[in-house]
Amino acid sequence: MLETMRWLPGEESLELLDQTKLPVEIVYIKCSDYRDVASAIKDMAVRGAPAIGAAAAYGLVLAAGKAGAGAKEDFLAQMETAASELAATRPTAVNLSWALSRLLQKARDADTSDTAALRELLLEEAHNIFHEDASGNRKIGEYGHGFIPQNGSVLTHCNAGALATAGYGTALGVIRAARDAGKNVSVYADETRPLLQGARLTTLELLQENIPVTLITDNMAGFLMAKGMVDLVIVGADRIASNGDVANKIGTYGLAVMAKAHHIPFYVAAPFSTVDLSLQAGDKIPIEERDHAEVTRHGGRLLAPAGVKVWNPAFDVTPHSLITAIITERGVVRPPFEKNLKKTI
Amino acid sequence: MLETMRWLPGEESLELLDQTKLPVEIVYIKCSDYRDVASAIKDMAVRGAPAIGAAAAYGLVLAAGKAGAGAKEDFLAQMETAASELAATRPTAVNLSWALSRLLQKARDADTSDTAALRELLLEEAHNIFHEDASGNRKIGEYGHGFIPQNGSVLTHCNAGALATAGYGTALGVIRAARDAGKNVSVYADETRPLLQGARLTTLELLQENIPVTLITDNMAGFLMAKGMVDLVIVGADRIASNGDVANKIGTYGLAVMAKAHHIPFYVAAPFSTVDLSLQAGDKIPIEERDHAEVTRHGGRLLAPAGVKVWNPAFDVTPHSLITAIITERGVVRPPFEKNLKKTI
Repeated sequence: MLETMRWLPGEESLELLDQTKLPVEIVYIKCSDYRDVASAIKDMAVRGAPAIGAAAAYGLVLAAGKAGAGAKEDFLAQMETAASELAATRPTAVNLSWALSRLLQKARDADTSDTAALRELLLEEAHNIFHEDASGNRKIGEYGHGFIPQNGSVLTHCNAGALATAGYGTALGVIRAARDAGKNVSVYADETRPLLQGARLTTLELLQENIPVTLITDNMAGFLMAKGMVDLVIVGADRIASNGDVANKIGTYGLAVMAKAHHIPFYVAAPFSTVDLSLQAGDKIPIEERDHAEVTRHGGRLLAPAGVKVWNPAFDVTPHSLITAIITERGVVRPPFEKNLKKTI
Repeated sequence: MLETMRWLPGEESLELLDQTKLPVEIVYIKCSDYRDVASAIKDMAVRGAPAIGAAAAYGLVLAAGKAGAGAKEDFLAQMETAASELAATRPTAVNLSWALSRLLQKARDADTSDTAALRELLLEEAHNIFHEDASGNRKIGEYGHGFIPQNGSVLTHCNAGALATAGYGTALGVIRAARDAGKNVSVYADETRPLLQGARLTTLELLQENIPVTLITDNMAGFLMAKGMVDLVIVGADRIASNGDVANKIGTYGLAVMAKAHHIPFYVAAPFSTVDLSLQAGDKIPIEERDHAEVTRHGGRLLAPAGVKVWNPAFDVTPHSLITAIITERGVVRPPFEKNLKKTI
């Protein structure tokens, strides 16, 4: 599988796979400045809640590498500025601020005020975040694959795979684990307009793994369910409120409504870094609205009359009542989520 | 508004607006042979159930114009061959075979065996179909606009407008009539993947009429409903079974499921030529599956990895239980549809 990101130790830089160019081109963006990382996150060269968390952590390491020698307060102030800028790139996924807070806390708690030493600590913590995510995803797979029947057909939305994480994936991690457990799992991938992460990324990952995958447009999901072609739905998450409401890629909510109407179980697979216990419910999750051109243009071609008004929320919120279970690296959380998420922390 | 089709009397030909090129280019395809019309229907240069019915009728007139003098049986045999070919272009919309049957019956019933006279009769009947459709749509608008509140926000799918008919439109006819009745109606248009009839055609029609329209991707409809931004859904139809089940553009079914979950009324607007009383229920309606490239390519650009498997049904079936009312040119049909559709015939 393609690496989503890689730290180049000798070069003090982070390479990010430019996912906007997949599947046509495989291009890495070399980031030597934290602002390069911020741009890559904003432009969605790197995307997926866990992946942007890890990328932002490395971004902060790049900022630390450029901090001059001086008082620790000065260093921390510079880190906080860079962290704010990185966090502001995308508002919905909580993993971004979670990862940045973790690094800032590490720096604050450190016994040293030596800039080079602090930077080392931050790099170590960024690596920890990266590796914990990858290993957490394998645990999510272990906990989740039992939900997939022997000849199961799974519908997924957007890309919650290796490309959205440090590796292996959340929703696709569960599917990989099911295959590794000897199941004949097959997948329907929603193309996921406007940016087509399902068509471009999920199909690519599954083709590379030889897991059977069929691409559909988003509006085919209901008919697919009505025809009995899907046993379960698994998606990732960008932020989970303390009551279990889930923000995820636009279209997730509609899938959950339709799954309920067809008595099809609906699972969310996500690391605990996606859970935001500070928010009581999903209506408090900020929903990013993105550029209209994402909807009205493709590859420079106009898909709609010039000047048409567009509504382009990048995420929606699925209420906990529509979710069968949340699969995390600490185990499967079932309703009542309000109580059980807190217990799992 | 752009004309969907126009008969050129002096030239014995039919001009069809190439809707695949909208909104970027306005190009008409000149058809002098019925096979040109068949190709235009198959390639969706002309689309929309009522429009393809009228286009096919004119196509049969072109076939009649080329029939040599001879016995009436020979003429009818040639017409039946051409009609079969025209009918086979697209299997789901019943208006196609309805219009062709109407012309064939006209020829059979005629007192003459003169080829030129028969062709004249067929042309007259094709004009009748065309003009009845346009005037029927105005009646649909009159019957339907009362369902739209004074400041109503309507969600529609695909294009059931002037471009899908002989003029004025079915679903968009209801919206036009509401505006003409002094209502502040605004519209959300699903882009309608894969061929983007909502993005390309519905927005174009509404912009030209100065009716406020906002474009969304198909997967945003659920979130739109959850946020209370929509008062009702109105769509067209490609075939209505005798129990009220409706085949319409893929994605319609999902909208109906979501509308029900949000207690939003769901209306179908269609001429009676779309009703097929010979079919008891929607599961008997043939559903066209179209080329995979519609999903995987746009303007020559690859949207997905080469060779990925695709499922591309062009329509789905919405069960009558999810439909609030069917608005026809003969009045509004409410449940129980089984009984009330027959009463309205």
